[in-house]
Amino acid sequence: MKIETVRGGLCAVKGVRAYGIREGHNGLALIEGKGQAVGMYTASKIKAAPVLFTKRQLNGDGGRIQAIIANSGCANSFTGEQGMRNAEKMAKLAADSLGVNEEEIAVASTGPIGKQLDMELIERQLGHVVKGLTSEATGSTTAAKAILTTDTFYKERAIRIDTGNEERVIISGIAKGSGMIFPHLATATATMLSFIYTDARLSEEILRVCFEDAVANSFNMVVVDGDMSTNDLVLLVSTGQGGEISEGDFKEGLNFVCKELAKLIARDGEGATKFIEARVKGAGSVEDAREVAKAIVRSPLVKSAIFGERPDFMCGRIIAAIGSCTTVSDVDPGRISIGLKGEDEGKEKDKDKDKVLAVKNGEFMDLTGVARELMKDKEIFIEVDLGVGESEATAWGCDLSYDYVKINSS
Amino acid sequence: MKIETVRGGLCAVKGVRAYGIREGHNGLALIEGKGQAVGMYTASKIKAAPVLFTKRQLNGDGGRIQAIIANSGCANSFTGEQGMRNAEKMAKLAADSLGVNEEEIAVASTGPIGKQLDMELIERQLGHVVKGLTSEATGSTTAAKAILTTDTFYKERAIRIDTGNEERVIISGIAKGSGMIFPHLATATATMLSFIYTDARLSEEILRVCFEDAVANSFNMVVVDGDMSTNDLVLLVSTGQGGEISEGDFKEGLNFVCKELAKLIARDGEGATKFIEARVKGAGSVEDAREVAKAIVRSPLVKSAIFGERPDFMCGRIIAAIGSCTTVSDVDPGRISIGLKGEDEGKEKDKDKDKVLAVKNGEFMDLTGVARELMKDKEIFIEVDLGVGESEATAWGCDLSYDYVKINSS
Repeated sequence: MKIETVRGGLCAVKGVRAYGIREGHNGLALIEGKGQAVGMYTASKIKAAPVLFTKRQLNGDGGRIQAIIANSGCANSFTGEQGMRNAEKMAKLAADSLGVNEEEIAVASTGPIGKQLDMELIERQLGHVVKGLTSEATGSTTAAKAILTTDTFYKERAIRIDTGNEERVIISGIAKGSGMIFPHLATATATMLSFIYTDARLSEEILRVCFEDAVANSFNMVVVDGDMSTNDLVLLVSTGQGGEISEGDFKEGLNFVCKELAKLIARDGEGATKFIEARVKGAGSVEDAREVAKAIVRSPLVKSAIFGERPDFMCGRIIAAIGSCTTVSDVDPGRISIGLKGEDEGKEKDKDKDKVLAVKNGEFMDLTGVARELMKDKEIFIEVDLGVGESEATAWGCDLSYDYVKINSS
Repeated sequence: MKIETVRGGLCAVKGVRAYGIREGHNGLALIEGKGQAVGMYTASKIKAAPVLFTKRQLNGDGGRIQAIIANSGCANSFTGEQGMRNAEKMAKLAADSLGVNEEEIAVASTGPIGKQLDMELIERQLGHVVKGLTSEATGSTTAAKAILTTDTFYKERAIRIDTGNEERVIISGIAKGSGMIFPHLATATATMLSFIYTDARLSEEILRVCFEDAVANSFNMVVVDGDMSTNDLVLLVSTGQGGEISEGDFKEGLNFVCKELAKLIARDGEGATKFIEARVKGAGSVEDAREVAKAIVRSPLVKSAIFGERPDFMCGRIIAAIGSCTTVSDVDPGRISIGLKGEDEGKEKDKDKDKVLAVKNGEFMDLTGVARELMKDKEIFIEVDLGVGESEATAWGCDLSYDYVKINSS
C-alpha cells in the first residue's frame, strides 16, 4: 500500500459537505456526510451533555449518521437537564435544516464549563452555515476553524491510500485542542474534538477495531497539561462509497491520520514553544511503555526544563517521571538509556550536532556541549530504552512556558 | 487533651541535639537522638540510594536509630552502586564522629538527580556540623535550613500535649519541600523530607499505626506540581523518655504536626503566590474524597485560574478535575456544590465578603462580585460537597505562576 497526502480535508471524501463560521469566541460547524459512525468519548466521570447525547444517538457503539453539528465557545458541560435539552435541540435544528432524521445527528461542544448554550445564537449561526455547505476544500477548512478555542491554527489532514489493487481509499480528519489536553478516550476523552471521514467499504466491527487501535496510539498519547476534559469526542464516519481495503491497510492509514492530528494538537499546546516526542522502547509491555511515555510528556518539571533548554535537569526529571509510574512492572535503573535528538526547520543539518546519548545504562553522559546545543531546537525527541523488554510506545506533548500560565490565568 | 505550640523545634524533645550548615547549594544536617524509628519512603519505582539504604537500616519497617544525616545539593539518586556505597559512607562518617554503631544511622538526600555525592565535601561539612551539635533551638533551626533546596523558608513545628493526666508529650518536626512535590509515601513520598521526634512512650506498632495515619492525612495530601520524587523520606523517632499517652491522643497530636508541616510545604511551593486548601466532603469513601481533593490541587488549569483570580474558570476546571477521577465510584453532577472562602492576613475581616456558594447542586451561582473579590486573597479555601456520602478529605497546594516556570527552567 502507498499513502499519499491530499488536499481537501474532510471534503476529500466524496459526498461530504461542510462549512463553519465563527464570531468572536463562538463558532459553529456543520459536517454533512451519510455513513456508518463509531465514536469514542471522554472517560471523565462528568460527561458533557453533547457527549452523553451523541453516545446515545450512536447507541453507545455505532450507528448511521447524516451529519455532525459542533460549536465552540460553550462546552454545554455541567448544565443539567437544560443542557441535555439544548443538545437535543441542536440536533433537531441541524436535522430540520438538512431535511434528515434527527436521530441521525451527532453533536459536539467545546468551551467553558458550567454555562448554558445560547440557543438563539446557535440557531442564527446555523442558518448561515447551512447556506455555506460545500464539498470544496474551504468547507472542511471553515469547519476546522469554527471549532477552535485557544488553538492558534486549524488542524486538518487527508490521505489517499493506494491499496495496490487498483483500489483507492480516502481517510480525512479535522481536530481541535490546545488546553485541557489529556485525552483518555474510552470505548468510546481534553477537550479535544476530532471528526474523521473515510469512504472505505468496511463493516462497523472492523471500523471499530481499527478506530480503537488508532485512538489508543494517537489522541490518547497526547498530553498538554494533564487535565482531562468533560467534552472529548472523536467520531469516525465511513460513507462506504470508496474502494475495498484490507483491515491491516486501513488500520495503518487510520493510525497515520490520527497520529498526524494528535501531533498537531501537541504542537499547538497552550503556550507551547517546543514540540516534544517521547518514545519509550524496551518496555515489558505496551501498557508499561504507554504509561512511561505519557508520564514524561505530562511532567511539569520535564516540560519546564525543556522550555529552559536544560538537558541535565530534564534527564533527572525524566528519571523521576519513569519512577513515578508505580504500576509499571519492571524498572531497572541500571538498564535505562536516554537518547536525545533536536530538529528545527530553519536549521542547517549537521548529523553530529543534533543527536546525543544522554544516559547510558543508568549513567549520565556529558550533558554540556552537543546536548545543550540541541535543546535549542524547536522539536525535541526523547528516546528512552528501559532495557527490560521488547514493547514500545510514543507520546507527544509540549513545553511549559510563561504563556501557558498567561493563557490560563486571564 | 490540650495541644500547645512550643519553641525549640526538634530540640524541644529532651535528648535531641542537632545542627546544620549550608554552603551555596550544598547543606548538611545532623540530628542526634536515640530512639525507636519508623520510616515511610517514596513509592517511586526508582528509589534513591539513601532511601534504599535507610529502609534497609530500619529493616524495612522499624528499628532503633542514634542519628540522622541528611544533605541537600545532590539527591544521590540514579547513581548505581557508587551511590549506595556513598550512602553507606555517609552513615559510617556520622557513626564514627558520634562514636555510635553505623547500623543505627539513617541517611537522607535531596537535590538534582543523576550525579554522585562529593564525599570530600560531606566529610568536611560533617566535621563542622558535629562540633556545632546543640540541644538549643538553634540546633533544630540550622538543621531545618541545611536541608532546603528551592524552599524560601525553613519548616519547623513543635507541640506539647497535655494529656490531662499530668503527663506531657512533645512532638516536633522539621521538613523541606518546594518542587517535585506529589508525595506518595508508602509503608512508608516529593523530594520532601521530614524528620519528626517525640518523647512519647509507645510501642513500635502503635508508633507505626499512628504514623501511617498521619502521613496519609498530611504529606500524602500535598501537591505542588504532581511530580513524584525518587527521594521522599519521612522518619518518626521516639525517644520514649517522656510521658504516657493514649494511642488516640498521640495520633491526634501527630496528625496536627504533620498537617502543619505539610501546609508549610504547600505554602512554599515553587513560585507560589497563593495557598490552596481543597476540602472534599460528602464522598462515598475516604479514598474517593482523597482522590478528588488531590485532583483539584494538582490541576494546572485550576492552579492557573487561581493565579489569575478567576472564580468562573476555576469552578469549571474543578468540575473537570472531579470528573477526571475515573476510579471514584459515585459522582452525580446534580448533587455537586462548591463553596469558596478567601483569607488574607493583611485584610480587614468582613464575613459577607470572604465567603460564597459558587456552585449549588450542579448549578453555577453568580461568580462576579464577592466571588471575584475573594479570589484576590492570599489563601483560597475550596469546599466541594459531592453530596453522595459521608466521607471527607483535605488536600493542600498552591497556584501555578510565572515564577514556577522560571524557577524550573533556569
